Amino acid sequence: MRRLYHMPLSPFCRKIRLVLAEKKIEVELVEERPWEKRMEYLRQNPAGLVPMLKIDDVTLSDSGAIFEYLEETYPVPPLLPQGALAKAEARRMAAWFDDKFQREVTVKLLYERVNKRIMKTGYPDSQAIKDGSQAIKYHLDYMDYLLDQRRWLAGDVMTIADFAAAAQLSCLDYISGVDWAHSEAVKDWYAKVKSRPAFRSLLADQVSGFPQPDHYADLDF
Amino acid sequence: MRRLYHMPLSPFCRKIRLVLAEKKIEVELVEERPWEKRMEYLRQNPAGLVPMLKIDDVTLSDSGAIFEYLEETYPVPPLLPQGALAKAEARRMAAWFDDKFQREVTVKLLYERVNKRIMKTGYPDSQAIKDGSQAIKYHLDYMDYLLDQRRWLAGDVMTIADFAAAAQLSCLDYISGVDWAHSEAVKDWYAKVKSRPAFRSLLADQVSGFPQPDHYADLDF
Repeated sequence: MRRLYHMPLSPFCRKIRLVLAEKKIEVELVEERPWEKRMEYLRQNPAGLVPMLKIDDVTLSDSGAIFEYLEETYPVPPLLPQGALAKAEARRMAAWFDDKFQREVTVKLLYERVNKRIMKTGYPDSQAIKDGSQAIKYHLDYMDYLLDQRRWLAGDVMTIADFAAAAQLSCLDYISGVDWAHSEAVKDWYAKVKSRPAFRSLLADQVSGFPQPDHYADLDF
Repeated sequence: MRRLYHMPLSPFCRKIRLVLAEKKIEVELVEERPWEKRMEYLRQNPAGLVPMLKIDDVTLSDSGAIFEYLEETYPVPPLLPQGALAKAEARRMAAWFDDKFQREVTVKLLYERVNKRIMKTGYPDSQAIKDGSQAIKYHLDYMDYLLDQRRWLAGDVMTIADFAAAAQLSCLDYISGVDWAHSEAVKDWYAKVKSRPAFRSLLADQVSGFPQPDHYADLDF
């Protein structure tokens, strides 16, 4: 039995869900609330984070390590391009969203508004939300600049970079945190990713206490 | 001309310096102060962080992407083990140090004590230092647990996980932030890594305003 332990609005889990679906690897989704520090979960995954994947009789954690495992073991379709330099660019851009975008935008907008309420750890910090709202503009500008020269974020083929970015943006879009009017190129790119069959499961997510906004699952947003 | 743009006490730069030296790839080290936001640097590396590597007529950034590029292009000696599962374990442990140890320990101890002074951004936060000093014990315990069952952190061969860990610990050791008496297994492991020729350049680092403690470069610490 293949199982992915996840949270619906975790960008790292969404990245792996996209990779699994694109590679047509079916998994059962199991919701795990990392802050509850379930002993049985920590035993298998000492870092205690989501996602964790059970597949091929092994247990994997860390979304980067999981991705590389899947890319090597289930190589079709590839989500890294050919050639060491092109691979480096795809990994650099994936890390941009996993690290920089996550820290500068997602932690400040999504975690303040949603995670704090779910985890009951206090009220949103308005300065953080202000900073995140400012930072996302800069990131959308950078994506706009890249997509002016490239079909996809890391080059002419779709890669893990596109999934890392779409995973982040889709979480923010769930709380109406993305101004799609900011860049036509980014909106067109997101429409392309969003319309892939691999994206369907993300569009069906429902988080208790946070109703899905109308445009979220609309392919014509 | 191969060049690594770096900071002496950046764990991510040290990890790449160890990888380069282990693979016997000679580079010129150029110190870059990311917070000065040099335009020419940002143009080549929009995330603005160190390390950045110029090699083979290309420019690479993000330490994860740089490592994977070097591993593919300069495969001898390998720093990832054979087999997808063993690779996943090496990458999981490298991410443990790059992400979790960095956030819970290094940011709280090294950044508070050193980076804030170099960057002139204020005084150390004593609560952060207290939290970091507590967290490092837990990490040393986890390493002790792993090294009780394995010769190296991710298994029976030395991998990028060992370099990611040694890069973090060596930065903290420069400010006498590691209690080597805490675990004999960790001390033995660090002595093994520290005595490799690849480590020599790290032991020669000198940071202005922060004299090297006596034990730092001593192989018999």
